[in-house]
Amino acid sequence: MSETVIKVGIVGGTGYSGGELLRLLLAHPRCKIQVVSSRSRAGEPVSGLFTNLRGRIDLDFAAPKLSLLTTCDVVFFATPNGTAMGMAGDLLAGGARVIDLSADFRLRECQVWERWYGMEHASPELLAEAVYGLPEINRTQIRTARLVANPGCYPTAVQLGFLPLLEAGVVNPDTLIADAKSGLSGAGRKADVGLLFSEVDENFAAYNVAGHRHLPEIVQGLQSLAGQTVGLTFVPHLLPMVRGIHATLYGRLTTGGVDLHALYRQRFQDEPFVDVLPLGSHAETRTVRGSNDCRLAIFQPQDGDTVVVLAVIDNLIKGAAGQAVQNMNIMFGIEERTGLGAVAMMP
Amino acid sequence: MSETVIKVGIVGGTGYSGGELLRLLLAHPRCKIQVVSSRSRAGEPVSGLFTNLRGRIDLDFAAPKLSLLTTCDVVFFATPNGTAMGMAGDLLAGGARVIDLSADFRLRECQVWERWYGMEHASPELLAEAVYGLPEINRTQIRTARLVANPGCYPTAVQLGFLPLLEAGVVNPDTLIADAKSGLSGAGRKADVGLLFSEVDENFAAYNVAGHRHLPEIVQGLQSLAGQTVGLTFVPHLLPMVRGIHATLYGRLTTGGVDLHALYRQRFQDEPFVDVLPLGSHAETRTVRGSNDCRLAIFQPQDGDTVVVLAVIDNLIKGAAGQAVQNMNIMFGIEERTGLGAVAMMP
Amino acid sequence: MSETVIKVGIVGGTGYSGGELLRLLLAHPRCKIQVVSSRSRAGEPVSGLFTNLRGRIDLDFAAPKLSLLTTCDVVFFATPNGTAMGMAGDLLAGGARVIDLSADFRLRECQVWERWYGMEHASPELLAEAVYGLPEINRTQIRTARLVANPGCYPTAVQLGFLPLLEAGVVNPDTLIADAKSGLSGAGRKADVGLLFSEVDENFAAYNVAGHRHLPEIVQGLQSLAGQTVGLTFVPHLLPMVRGIHATLYGRLTTGGVDLHALYRQRFQDEPFVDVLPLGSHAETRTVRGSNDCRLAIFQPQDGDTVVVLAVIDNLIKGAAGQAVQNMNIMFGIEERTGLGAVAMMP
Amino acid sequence: MSETVIKVGIVGGTGYSGGELLRLLLAHPRCKIQVVSSRSRAGEPVSGLFTNLRGRIDLDFAAPKLSLLTTCDVVFFATPNGTAMGMAGDLLAGGARVIDLSADFRLRECQVWERWYGMEHASPELLAEAVYGLPEINRTQIRTARLVANPGCYPTAVQLGFLPLLEAGVVNPDTLIADAKSGLSGAGRKADVGLLFSEVDENFAAYNVAGHRHLPEIVQGLQSLAGQTVGLTFVPHLLPMVRGIHATLYGRLTTGGVDLHALYRQRFQDEPFVDVLPLGSHAETRTVRGSNDCRLAIFQPQDGDTVVVLAVIDNLIKGAAGQAVQNMNIMFGIEERTGLGAVAMMP
Repeated sequence: MSETVIKVGIVGGTGYSGGELLRLLLAHPRCKIQVVSSRSRAGEPVSGLFTNLRGRIDLDFAAPKLSLLTTCDVVFFATPNGTAMGMAGDLLAGGARVIDLSADFRLRECQVWERWYGMEHASPELLAEAVYGLPEINRTQIRTARLVANPGCYPTAVQLGFLPLLEAGVVNPDTLIADAKSGLSGAGRKADVGLLFSEVDENFAAYNVAGHRHLPEIVQGLQSLAGQTVGLTFVPHLLPMVRGIHATLYGRLTTGGVDLHALYRQRFQDEPFVDVLPLGSHAETRTVRGSNDCRLAIFQPQDGDTVVVLAVIDNLIKGAAGQAVQNMNIMFGIEERTGLGAVAMMP
Repeated sequence: MSETVIKVGIVGGTGYSGGELLRLLLAHPRCKIQVVSSRSRAGEPVSGLFTNLRGRIDLDFAAPKLSLLTTCDVVFFATPNGTAMGMAGDLLAGGARVIDLSADFRLRECQVWERWYGMEHASPELLAEAVYGLPEINRTQIRTARLVANPGCYPTAVQLGFLPLLEAGVVNPDTLIADAKSGLSGAGRKADVGLLFSEVDENFAAYNVAGHRHLPEIVQGLQSLAGQTVGLTFVPHLLPMVRGIHATLYGRLTTGGVDLHALYRQRFQDEPFVDVLPLGSHAETRTVRGSNDCRLAIFQPQDGDTVVVLAVIDNLIKGAAGQAVQNMNIMFGIEERTGLGAVAMMP
Repeated sequence: MSETVIKVGIVGGTGYSGGELLRLLLAHPRCKIQVVSSRSRAGEPVSGLFTNLRGRIDLDFAAPKLSLLTTCDVVFFATPNGTAMGMAGDLLAGGARVIDLSADFRLRECQVWERWYGMEHASPELLAEAVYGLPEINRTQIRTARLVANPGCYPTAVQLGFLPLLEAGVVNPDTLIADAKSGLSGAGRKADVGLLFSEVDENFAAYNVAGHRHLPEIVQGLQSLAGQTVGLTFVPHLLPMVRGIHATLYGRLTTGGVDLHALYRQRFQDEPFVDVLPLGSHAETRTVRGSNDCRLAIFQPQDGDTVVVLAVIDNLIKGAAGQAVQNMNIMFGIEERTGLGAVAMMP
Repeated sequence: MSETVIKVGIVGGTGYSGGELLRLLLAHPRCKIQVVSSRSRAGEPVSGLFTNLRGRIDLDFAAPKLSLLTTCDVVFFATPNGTAMGMAGDLLAGGARVIDLSADFRLRECQVWERWYGMEHASPELLAEAVYGLPEINRTQIRTARLVANPGCYPTAVQLGFLPLLEAGVVNPDTLIADAKSGLSGAGRKADVGLLFSEVDENFAAYNVAGHRHLPEIVQGLQSLAGQTVGLTFVPHLLPMVRGIHATLYGRLTTGGVDLHALYRQRFQDEPFVDVLPLGSHAETRTVRGSNDCRLAIFQPQDGDTVVVLAVIDNLIKGAAGQAVQNMNIMFGIEERTGLGAVAMMP
């Protein structure tokens, strides 16, 4: 290929998003992974941790050095919250573009961020510059962005699901409900008794009903779509499975006679990764496992005034690493689907 | 023990509810299982099908003969819908009392039943006599009932969850939402490709969003509690696990300043099988797996006007066989907890 | 009941064996749980950790004080290896009997223990007194034992499976193979990334093939049965499920014409918790989940000289807490099945 | 690309192997799927059944017509046993090459086949021509084969695992043991109560211990490697997971001092899809899920004379559809890895 190659760095590549990013980028025809950093595993081979990558990658984890990272065209952060905000400024100054998979740059208001994340923000001046990387809404701004805040997994599913309703102004924005369910990979790869197989297998429960950090992110996005304040009740649950988010969304219709299915099909007809299912079909998480797709189903039970939207994504792909690659493709002017063509693995 | 023994018959004991009923009744100190019928397996040992019962039960499946069944004090139906309605009348005439775990006698209006179940009702005259067997609401009528319609699994969780709110009149009954999730044993033991392990494992999806048969049953119950028409959106989902129902319930509060937690604790303080969790706790299905308990948690996120109730039961016990035994205990004047003392198995 | 009550203490009741012991003892008609100790959770309610026990137990975890524990008739240790050996001597001196679910007293030779467990043994003088608590072999000695070493989970399944073959001397003891598979609860309740749901779900692998700590325990037991040295290859694997051990055992027959099925039935005919399955049946872990049973199946494929034995137990019950209760019943002269009557929960 | 395109037909594409073949071939840069036949679903869109393929394939299932299939360069059979043998002859005569994923052409001796498969063989004359499609053994013959018998899933794992030992003659071929475990997708996509989620989840058991159809296939292959009769005990088990085979293999070494790890590395050093793990590593099924790799680990516990080999594959890929594509690549002179580059999805 005569096309230029994008030099990529990954900071904090030892969690599930980092591993998925590696898997996707290794298969990306236009990328070269130059650095994968991890403070705790510096010097160890990457394929020793991600044993699925044996024979596919020869790199060792490196310490996260600025001089190394600024040789990259783009640096992905797959770190816990609070890391990217301390390094992004220097990387941008050094000429690299940044895609942050953590939450550091997702909220526009610094105060709100600090309240929900319980720490001081290290780079509040970058919040205004950061582009929220949901391509279905912000594709134009992403193209020229230096700093992209990759959306959270729940926020991706919930915003894509509500989007046509809010843009068209056909639901009451005061009484939205998002009942969301996530596979356990969404909880991350950390030594926590509550995430042990024997604790969560054959179990189902809601968590953080009183308030989850994705709530302000979703509300910010929905308000932007609605052009007004929205009232959202967001209840996340953990599913006894690894991958997949299913958001069941409820809204009260304000006008009758709208062809909701047509509304969705039109809104997403040119979107490469959003699939509106035929009327009557239900969205299944397995149909997107391993792919960057979001599938949507729309119902209006008993022809009442409640609309029910079912939205499914793979939380590690469209909800994290895949969307990050999609953003990179847009930022570098590559065809948006490049490296993201995998079909969901079923069964 | 000098106390009399209740002679029990089970019709259609080859499904999951039937097996669970056998397991519970074998441990019940006041029962003797006299007949277990199955048309298709007549003559085969019961423990050949339910291999967990090897060494515990000596009976063979019998053909469902009336003369045999009327020697019982009580006959349980664990049959597909449409069977009990054809036999209940004769059994009652023969002197047996009947507890029907199927849906045949759950709806008071024959027409509604026929529309949702797609067949003619064989004994419409019994619909008025049948008592809906949710002890927390109908304990008094159950005591003297000859014919008890054991509630469905979703209806049990949803009604118990909404009960205090509707009785107290503190939510708008027009806009109730029940987002319910069930383990796969709720779908029954039938040769159906859609229920194969490889089809449903690591998958999550809603089903029958346009209309599920439990909807009219729930609505009937909620209307009775509210004393008026209710508007309910009911969305059932299948969980990749065997046992457990989790209902996430949403209502709009009509008045401020109500201590919802106190309301729930008071309403259920004398109920042997309903546990209201401490404020801030989330209900987990595993804490009721194998037990007859229903656990409830109540939230009012961001102190808004939406109340969120989490209700969990074991669909095969409080949602089927356990509630049937509870009803039997009430009908025969036995202490209600008898035979139902098992603690949930965790992990 | 006019019968005396056994006062019970549990040291280290915060893991899976401890929780299961609590669940079983709460349902035991002859026991009173007097102390549940945990250094790390002293002062917290037991039912706060084991939420399935809400409403069933009123105790708080206590610090493990000797004066408190010696008021008990029997003290169970459900602690990590290395704790019981430091306290057992004082408890025995104080008049309590001890059942140790950890490995501290399972090996007769102190040196072998120290090599496999990597620490010095604190009470080598008690090793000779300790009785290995496999009732099917040592029932008589257990009756009068002050100190019982409760067997490991793998050792229970493997020894029961090989027992009749070795006692009868019909296999070559030099070439035994035990290919064993365990549910994840066997790995315990500890914050370990390798035990996270997302790491082990939908995965299967062997571990410690070079040498597992249960190897010397099994070999010691098998040699005792065989009356000679045995050669055993033991390969443990982890199953993506919570409960259950399945041991697939292989031996070379030394004589033809033995009715192996009859041999097994005779050996175990009076055992309350060992069930020899009909010829041709395969043993399934689900048929013992939640029960204290061990089920065995015997095959001689293609009528060759290799015998294959399938042995299943619930690792937390017959492989830990249930066997401990069985030992207690024997030690205190109670009917052996008391409190252990639960039928496996299926599905 | 100026390279010619291979026109592909798939007969019986409604099961798991068929679906996986579709998924792989859609991503294969040198193939065009021309026909997908299914008698029962003729006329329905392929993506209606395989909902993961929505938007990726436009074909409808066709009736399996000879005239249509002979327009293909190669026809894959993903049918139940007994179908390919009736059609292969005509297809070959019509100029198509055939890769049969069923068992019809795997055994060289017609009588043995008929005994194990319980039917008369329709084309015994083709058995001699058929090449057994295990590339690591028969690559040269596959190149020119018209008819390839794609190996079974268990046979692939077991033969690759034993291969170096038998070729080198370092184990006693009379006493081989293969303790194999398979995910449930290996049991196929058929309406069978025994395969329901609620029957097999949280359960583990062996099956067909008395004799499984893959036994003669494995024995035939091993004998060919050993150049003599072999004695094999083969015990298959079902794992509560979807994909993956783990074979734990046991052999008695006949000579000491062999560097087994070196033996394996040398034998497979040029194989694109066989990975010999570093000494001490255990093979995990998740590291090959979604890939065409076979990973092997070799142990000699306690330096005794028993060698233990761990072999893992994805039963639907290296054990079925992936190996079929690998065979196609070899038959058509394409680089063997083409279309098979996917990295295992983990977690």
